[in-house]
Amino acid sequence: MNTKRFSKDTFDKFKNTAQKTLHRSLDQHIKLAVTGFSGSGKTAFITALIKHLTSQTNKTNLPFFDVIREQRLIAVKQIPQRALDIPTFDYASAVGCLLNETPSWPSSTQRINTLTLALKFESRHVLKQHLSPVSTVYLELIDYPGEWLVDLPMLNQDYQAWSQAVLKVLKQPQYRGYAKEFLDMLASFDGGALVDESILKQLSQHYQQLLVTLKAQTNIAQLQPGRMLIPGDLAGAPVLLFFPCFSAGEHSNDSQYNHLQSRFNAYKQQVVTPFYKQHFCQFDRQIVLVDVLSALSDGPDTLKEQEDALRNIVQVFDYGRSGLLKRLFYPKIDKVLFAANKCDHVSYEQQPLLAKLLHSMLHEQSNDLRFAGVEIDTMAISAVQSTQQKQVVEAGKSLNCIQGKPNNEQHTITFLPPEPPSHRLSRAQWPAQGFDFLSFAPVPAQEGCLSHVRLDHVLQFLLGDKLR
Amino acid sequence: MNTKRFSKDTFDKFKNTAQKTLHRSLDQHIKLAVTGFSGSGKTAFITALIKHLTSQTNKTNLPFFDVIREQRLIAVKQIPQRALDIPTFDYASAVGCLLNETPSWPSSTQRINTLTLALKFESRHVLKQHLSPVSTVYLELIDYPGEWLVDLPMLNQDYQAWSQAVLKVLKQPQYRGYAKEFLDMLASFDGGALVDESILKQLSQHYQQLLVTLKAQTNIAQLQPGRMLIPGDLAGAPVLLFFPCFSAGEHSNDSQYNHLQSRFNAYKQQVVTPFYKQHFCQFDRQIVLVDVLSALSDGPDTLKEQEDALRNIVQVFDYGRSGLLKRLFYPKIDKVLFAANKCDHVSYEQQPLLAKLLHSMLHEQSNDLRFAGVEIDTMAISAVQSTQQKQVVEAGKSLNCIQGKPNNEQHTITFLPPEPPSHRLSRAQWPAQGFDFLSFAPVPAQEGCLSHVRLDHVLQFLLGDKLR
Repeated sequence: MNTKRFSKDTFDKFKNTAQKTLHRSLDQHIKLAVTGFSGSGKTAFITALIKHLTSQTNKTNLPFFDVIREQRLIAVKQIPQRALDIPTFDYASAVGCLLNETPSWPSSTQRINTLTLALKFESRHVLKQHLSPVSTVYLELIDYPGEWLVDLPMLNQDYQAWSQAVLKVLKQPQYRGYAKEFLDMLASFDGGALVDESILKQLSQHYQQLLVTLKAQTNIAQLQPGRMLIPGDLAGAPVLLFFPCFSAGEHSNDSQYNHLQSRFNAYKQQVVTPFYKQHFCQFDRQIVLVDVLSALSDGPDTLKEQEDALRNIVQVFDYGRSGLLKRLFYPKIDKVLFAANKCDHVSYEQQPLLAKLLHSMLHEQSNDLRFAGVEIDTMAISAVQSTQQKQVVEAGKSLNCIQGKPNNEQHTITFLPPEPPSHRLSRAQWPAQGFDFLSFAPVPAQEGCLSHVRLDHVLQFLLGDKLR
Repeated sequence: MNTKRFSKDTFDKFKNTAQKTLHRSLDQHIKLAVTGFSGSGKTAFITALIKHLTSQTNKTNLPFFDVIREQRLIAVKQIPQRALDIPTFDYASAVGCLLNETPSWPSSTQRINTLTLALKFESRHVLKQHLSPVSTVYLELIDYPGEWLVDLPMLNQDYQAWSQAVLKVLKQPQYRGYAKEFLDMLASFDGGALVDESILKQLSQHYQQLLVTLKAQTNIAQLQPGRMLIPGDLAGAPVLLFFPCFSAGEHSNDSQYNHLQSRFNAYKQQVVTPFYKQHFCQFDRQIVLVDVLSALSDGPDTLKEQEDALRNIVQVFDYGRSGLLKRLFYPKIDKVLFAANKCDHVSYEQQPLLAKLLHSMLHEQSNDLRFAGVEIDTMAISAVQSTQQKQVVEAGKSLNCIQGKPNNEQHTITFLPPEPPSHRLSRAQWPAQGFDFLSFAPVPAQEGCLSHVRLDHVLQFLLGDKLR
């Protein structure tokens, strides 16, 4: 008896251990990076994603997310993160803003931060089912400032090319007014002169102030170097004290120009490259949030600039995959979703136009990326709903309006949004009256629940295959 | 003629190049670290040092600094620093505070920062003189927060030893009142329980708040981990979310205790060690500023705690030099000066007592350090003068008083400071009335010139041998 019982115990133990080991290797770890240019709604997106996964997992709420429609999701909870040197995403504060009686948008991402969820689910996978019906996927969410994203294309540029690209944008009619003071100072700057710390510092500070102004006053996406906008521990370091400048001819080692060039190169090596290697190359999947409507409201220059910025970033995803040279570090991302966020700032009928417009802005580049084996998609979404659809009959005609509380206003309004274009417009095609979209505050939560538009589609695209 | 002239040119050129090459190898680069516990006057010290070296270099002002007494210092100016990722010391703001009509102390060091001076001087060195009478020493000043210094001894501790040491201090009568809430929470904390992020976060935040309170309310020197006081880019990261805690027995990997231990180890590896390797081990010379008077005012516990903190730090200087194990990284510091700063808060006659007291606090440890080949000294100094000596005759007796404007007060007062002890006092030897020293604002500058006490002695000890 004793012997038999012992054997049974041993066998159970062994089976258990074997299952655990196999199981662990089948458990998946997904690093999902959430990014987008500044103001595109990253923090609200992550907050909504956590809220829906942890406490609103029902078929009515997320019908297009397979694991939920098939009622296989058992539980989702936050677990301790692996990286100890990265701040934890402050979910409690962010969800607090959205669940408030008078809801507001959570404040924007100033640094990289992270949060890990464990998703326990019943597997449909034959092998997994055989071992145990329950699997776990660890979803590591990484939120990083849009300012860091727009720095990545600098990796492909030298100081001269970068200077030319930046100065070209600054000289465009729409931005020239803001840039005039800096450009005037630059005109009398002598790159060939012997280095003078105080002049470099002064012009760098003017350039930094210009970036801050452009960020506040325009919807320009590509403000480089991004760390000038959120310097953190680098505030005051020479690596942030440079600016774009034309050069003519060769300069000595001790020249102002060469010091600027050294600092530009140091910025790439000491700031951008570490982010690229330590974080960007480690992501499995990425969602890029784009606020197309604000760019449309701003005018043709901003839309074109946003398109250029998006293309530059797509090139970074592709960096290292293409080219004859095999590089040591390249992104391992296999799925990228471009999402036109805040889509409920137009009527339901107009939302597909936004997805099409975003698609057209990315068309050529995304083709290359698909060719390199990356699955990509574009969608129009609202991570957090901020308007209600409303039919208004005027002069016998039914109008598709939206109803919501504009940001920083007291009262709800009904608004007939202009029709967004479904493709890129040339300057000649741009409507004379422009596009005048509004920005709305989040819709108040109902019984502690947030609403969304197509977040379930997003989840299915980004996670569906890992939760089978 | 042509040939001859050509040869002469070539020869001159060659001689020039040879001189330059040899010269460069004789030019010296000195990394001088300025440190001290929080509030010891680091920023004011560096500001005064730059001010005196760049614009007050005369025999009357700095009589004990050989290169100046011998009138061999030609010029000193700020040059671009080598490290591009470290903020530049903001000399302009700091000297502005001191030169103001109503002078004030510059604000404290929140991060590491640096500034490089080039000191051009006539050499007395035979070899150097032969080549050219003019040599240059590059003096790299490095200012880093006292909070980082007190973290270094953690490198020699494991989590358990560290917890015991910290909790022992917190339970001392003088600090218990502040620590009560945290200690009560800790008493009901179960280290063996399964990890719960929210509990760890809550207790860590309480511990952090306790450190902030102790820094504001007491003169306790060793508040660890120092980054909890100035988190910078690490704010909110798990590596800063731990606290001291007793353990009984073994705990599972998933236990609260093991998570705390992992974070403590990560803090050592990811925060303290990089500072130690990248900065601390690179310094050539170091001045440690100590505010002995504030500790005396605070009482015997604080003086004892400051003494312990100093000893722990001296051990770090010695770390890697001693021991059987040869370590890869060890400090290359060859001179350390411990300076009792703000010595003019007592009368001129009492100042030597301060140097003696500091010497007695360091006695045993400094012996070890000398044995390891590090030259050390103790001095009583005031980097920036804040009082005037004043003789007051009372009842026929002459009293050595000081005159100055106490910090945050409007009027100048005349003050008879208590006599500081010349050696460590046991609790029994401590005078019943304690020590009641005052803190003074800087003395207004005379014609744009700052005054000091023994800054020339400091310069001679730290730099004299390099300027011969």
